[in-house]
Amino acid sequence: MNPAWIIQKKRDGGALTEKEIREFISGIADGSVPDYQATAWLMAVFFRGMTLEETMALTRAMLESGQRYDLSDVEGKKVDKHSTGGVGDKVSLILAPLAAACGAKVPMMSGRGLGHSGGTLDKLESIRGFNVRLTEAEFKRVLGVVGCGMIGQSEKIAPADKKLYALRDVTGTVECIPLITASILSKKLAEGTGSLVLDVKVGSGAFMKSKEQARKLAKTIVQVARKLGLPTRAILTDMNQPLGCAVGNSLEVLECINVLRNRKDVDGCSADLRELTLELCAQMLELCGVAKTVKDGRKLSLKKLSDGSAWRAFEQLVYEQGGDLEQIRNPEKLEISPKKVTWKAAKSGYITRIDTEEIGRILVDLGGGRKKASDPVDPSVGLLFHRKLGSKVAEGDPLVTVHFNEGDISLLETRFHRALEVKSTRKPVPKLILERI
Amino acid sequence: MNPAWIIQKKRDGGALTEKEIREFISGIADGSVPDYQATAWLMAVFFRGMTLEETMALTRAMLESGQRYDLSDVEGKKVDKHSTGGVGDKVSLILAPLAAACGAKVPMMSGRGLGHSGGTLDKLESIRGFNVRLTEAEFKRVLGVVGCGMIGQSEKIAPADKKLYALRDVTGTVECIPLITASILSKKLAEGTGSLVLDVKVGSGAFMKSKEQARKLAKTIVQVARKLGLPTRAILTDMNQPLGCAVGNSLEVLECINVLRNRKDVDGCSADLRELTLELCAQMLELCGVAKTVKDGRKLSLKKLSDGSAWRAFEQLVYEQGGDLEQIRNPEKLEISPKKVTWKAAKSGYITRIDTEEIGRILVDLGGGRKKASDPVDPSVGLLFHRKLGSKVAEGDPLVTVHFNEGDISLLETRFHRALEVKSTRKPVPKLILERI
Repeated sequence: MNPAWIIQKKRDGGALTEKEIREFISGIADGSVPDYQATAWLMAVFFRGMTLEETMALTRAMLESGQRYDLSDVEGKKVDKHSTGGVGDKVSLILAPLAAACGAKVPMMSGRGLGHSGGTLDKLESIRGFNVRLTEAEFKRVLGVVGCGMIGQSEKIAPADKKLYALRDVTGTVECIPLITASILSKKLAEGTGSLVLDVKVGSGAFMKSKEQARKLAKTIVQVARKLGLPTRAILTDMNQPLGCAVGNSLEVLECINVLRNRKDVDGCSADLRELTLELCAQMLELCGVAKTVKDGRKLSLKKLSDGSAWRAFEQLVYEQGGDLEQIRNPEKLEISPKKVTWKAAKSGYITRIDTEEIGRILVDLGGGRKKASDPVDPSVGLLFHRKLGSKVAEGDPLVTVHFNEGDISLLETRFHRALEVKSTRKPVPKLILERI
Repeated sequence: MNPAWIIQKKRDGGALTEKEIREFISGIADGSVPDYQATAWLMAVFFRGMTLEETMALTRAMLESGQRYDLSDVEGKKVDKHSTGGVGDKVSLILAPLAAACGAKVPMMSGRGLGHSGGTLDKLESIRGFNVRLTEAEFKRVLGVVGCGMIGQSEKIAPADKKLYALRDVTGTVECIPLITASILSKKLAEGTGSLVLDVKVGSGAFMKSKEQARKLAKTIVQVARKLGLPTRAILTDMNQPLGCAVGNSLEVLECINVLRNRKDVDGCSADLRELTLELCAQMLELCGVAKTVKDGRKLSLKKLSDGSAWRAFEQLVYEQGGDLEQIRNPEKLEISPKKVTWKAAKSGYITRIDTEEIGRILVDLGGGRKKASDPVDPSVGLLFHRKLGSKVAEGDPLVTVHFNEGDISLLETRFHRALEVKSTRKPVPKLILERI
């Protein structure tokens, strides 16, 4: 194989053969194809796209560059959820134990936050002691005992994806449907799940800003996954505002605990988080066969959330993965900075627009997110929203409580007010669940 | 500067500012922008192109990444020629001493052969002792004494270009007009010439296969060069067959000596080489002001070639740059392999097509060219054509004499016959000089 030819073929709009893709990707994994050829190829793929066959071959090649978990000796119907990422998206922390409480097995491999977008692993690690680096055997044990397990991508899982993902991040080749598809599915196939529900985010806080793009991505992933033998479905959901009330790792864990314990949130800002979690759980239960219909799945999910089963599964998950039970049972022990201010409405009216990506960036600048993959994350900072899109506010009403640690945050307040539009006439609020694919 | 943003801006079709280009290129030169970001950017430029202003900024940035020769204390009218490269293109070896003999000063910085395309430095180095690695002071001395000097690109000249050129070669980003333009002009501006004549090759042995592409490249280079203060003109010339009769380094030197010494070539196959050299020289003399008109330049060139002045300038050049005078005066001493075969016409008819790039590749496979930049080159092998495009041949007529060193060349003979089309009806032969821009 001559990597330069493969780059040229893609550059000229040709479809690569399975063999060409396999050799190129295994060359990336073993280092025989240097990074500078990998990135030129990534950019050519960005411009030329890939056929469904190429995307399948790429997914397989990335999967086969590493280890694949064998969960066949874990009994039960396996199903996972993947979200394309957003701001305040802490669904997995509630959903995995909820689906487990409903009787499904949820082997969940998640990522870290980068840029404006948060990551499940960071949220979990804001619980003292929670270990996301389990061996395959430990992972299977937890999955068997709790019904769900939550881990990160080990070095051995899809190493080609790991390398390409890092390169894409710094070469403007992130927003590319075949590359996103192969990256997601190679990991999901490697973790050993039996089916997959995809939450594709659309809006100002999502990768995909338009419904058309999001739909195209969802359809591609669903098609490729099915062809590779992984039953998959997708829903398109709104990300034109942070999901729930909390943005910032410990604050988000606190919000999850409140939802799991059925505690009333004072401002009603967690309603969308609860609703989306129930919807995703219903889809998962039906897809994996625990429930006969989505409606049945919905009913079961609601029951297991309301009766405390989901909360108990979460406790068990935290315990089995080494987390501090005391801390989650007494969430005032969560590491949340006591230094806080409230940002208030500068005028009366309706909240008509939230630049959600900018909210994510404000979290990064508070220290609660990452600019680059190697940055540390401060779990104790964040924003707690008191109002959502469409809310009526009067001048001086609290919009958000900000927990911070150091530095001058007045500049961030200016940015926040610029990111949040208040107008005198109400605008329709986007639906939470946009489309089922 | 954030290199990832610059890549993204270009990817999305934006025009980069002079500052962005300067910082990106200086980052490439000093290594702070890693190769994997450089190549993603190159591919984005390949797809999105560059405005004239961007191309100017890129040229300037590459020029300023290194040293610039100051030839102001070398008296005389300076002019150089650059060819976009082809097969059998040995013009520079005759042209530089000829233009010098006519009274111009020719500071010529050339490249090496790569792929199917030959390089002036390799041809010069097939003369024993010829040193193309002069210091600036030596270069100026030779230029002053002889009227021309012929060197390679030192490490200090446009190092950003050197790095990008090597990366382009292995990432499918060679054929890109703004990148070609900046690469050529940054070196020509660095060598200190006062004006430039460009020989843009078109046809089966050239980078540019169509006249439209070649014209576009020529126009871009001429425009950018003029804006950067370098008077430049271009001619489009045919590369649908090797230029002259010889392909292979020592054989090409031999052909140049024969032209310089006004020796009749038995088969008349050097006529196009001689004609093109005279045309280019006439253009150079007029452009730099040695001749009032191109016609005058042509007359002067013809005189200095015919009366042996050009040959004496060549002798002097070889002597001053350390080459072996004995060898060029007695060209049977040139290193040409005595092992040879003749490939003959398989049928009678007219030569209607020569896949010239394939001829270049056959030379590479004889050992006389390079697949990659680090390959050694065997100067003693090559092909000597007895017939040109449009020639009438009878079955069994010698088409080419092949000098070789080792290995089975029967496969190469098959490839040769496939590369050369003989038909019963004559086809018009492309004009040598296609267009003046």
